[in-house]
Amino acid sequence: MTRALLASRNAKKLRELRRIVAAEGIARLEIVGLDEVPAFPEAPETGATFEENALAKARDAARETGMPAIADDSGIAVDALNGMPGVLSARWSGKHGDDDANLDLLLGQLGDVPDERRGAAFVCAAALVIPGVDEIVVRGEWRGTLIRERRGTGGFGYDPIFVPAGSAITSAEMSAEEKDAESHRGRALRQLVPHLQRL
Amino acid sequence: MTRALLASRNAKKLRELRRIVAAEGIARLEIVGLDEVPAFPEAPETGATFEENALAKARDAARETGMPAIADDSGIAVDALNGMPGVLSARWSGKHGDDDANLDLLLGQLGDVPDERRGAAFVCAAALVIPGVDEIVVRGEWRGTLIRERRGTGGFGYDPIFVPAGSAITSAEMSAEEKDAESHRGRALRQLVPHLQRL
Repeated sequence: MTRALLASRNAKKLRELRRIVAAEGIARLEIVGLDEVPAFPEAPETGATFEENALAKARDAARETGMPAIADDSGIAVDALNGMPGVLSARWSGKHGDDDANLDLLLGQLGDVPDERRGAAFVCAAALVIPGVDEIVVRGEWRGTLIRERRGTGGFGYDPIFVPAGSAITSAEMSAEEKDAESHRGRALRQLVPHLQRL
Repeated sequence: MTRALLASRNAKKLRELRRIVAAEGIARLEIVGLDEVPAFPEAPETGATFEENALAKARDAARETGMPAIADDSGIAVDALNGMPGVLSARWSGKHGDDDANLDLLLGQLGDVPDERRGAAFVCAAALVIPGVDEIVVRGEWRGTLIRERRGTGGFGYDPIFVPAGSAITSAEMSAEEKDAESHRGRALRQLVPHLQRL
């Protein structure tokens, strides 16, 4: 059994990556999270791009544990905000990880933005660092539009106001499996699968 | 005496334009504000650019009053936010015109942004619409960096954290005359002076 580390303490992300790895038929790969390895100091995410942040996190985790390490950095790029909140998505309101405050702020900022200019994309950069062997960074995007009120209780972050292109429901109204099949994170993580298969 | 309308109710902006017009020696031009003409319905600012908003405001004012009309739209373009808050500067926190909330939010968003990536520019688009004759739109920019705590009590908006390039003080620590000489609004409005002289 080969082990790879997902550099995250987020149980949902861990389950998501395990679902994708299982769906791709990689039976001999065990994905563990940060809570299952000895603690190490984690650097803050101060990169200017999703790719920079994902790679820095994966490098840190690989160096500290000696394991192949996967990390992602995700967010929403809003057309009317020139691609922001971007790398600041999780701390858009100034407080880290307050989903409600971040979403309220974004809705407020877009209050006067007309329907035809409410396009956005969820973006995910995922990095895989195999110590001494290889570094891979990939990117997945999921285009859609932002509605004016929350709908749905699934997902997290900006899901309740994001209606994917070609969909009638928000990503917060989708099942986990529907979301995996289309989402930015699903698209990015599946690009890592061929590299995980070689481990 | 020729009269021109500044499409604003902001007494500071009115004084500023009058100072600039006087400094340029245009003695026979009287600048009046929106409070000195009969009220008309004002359209919301929903343009995607400063230029669009300034021109729309000046066109409305000229059409409704028959007078030559000047309007501006200004804001701060922050490098680390891909040029935002931009046209949303006055409502960045979701509430219109709450300078304190807007500034606190921007400081919070930039909390993890290192010193070398804290560049910004104040931007002003100014439009002059002379009914049946001409439409002119100009732009002024003022580059600087954003510090981490407020300094100074002058100005308004984001002035207390903006240190202009080549300056040791914030724009909130400058006198009105120092600011006029360098600021984005001063630069834009002075570009209109030759056109105002022809009125």
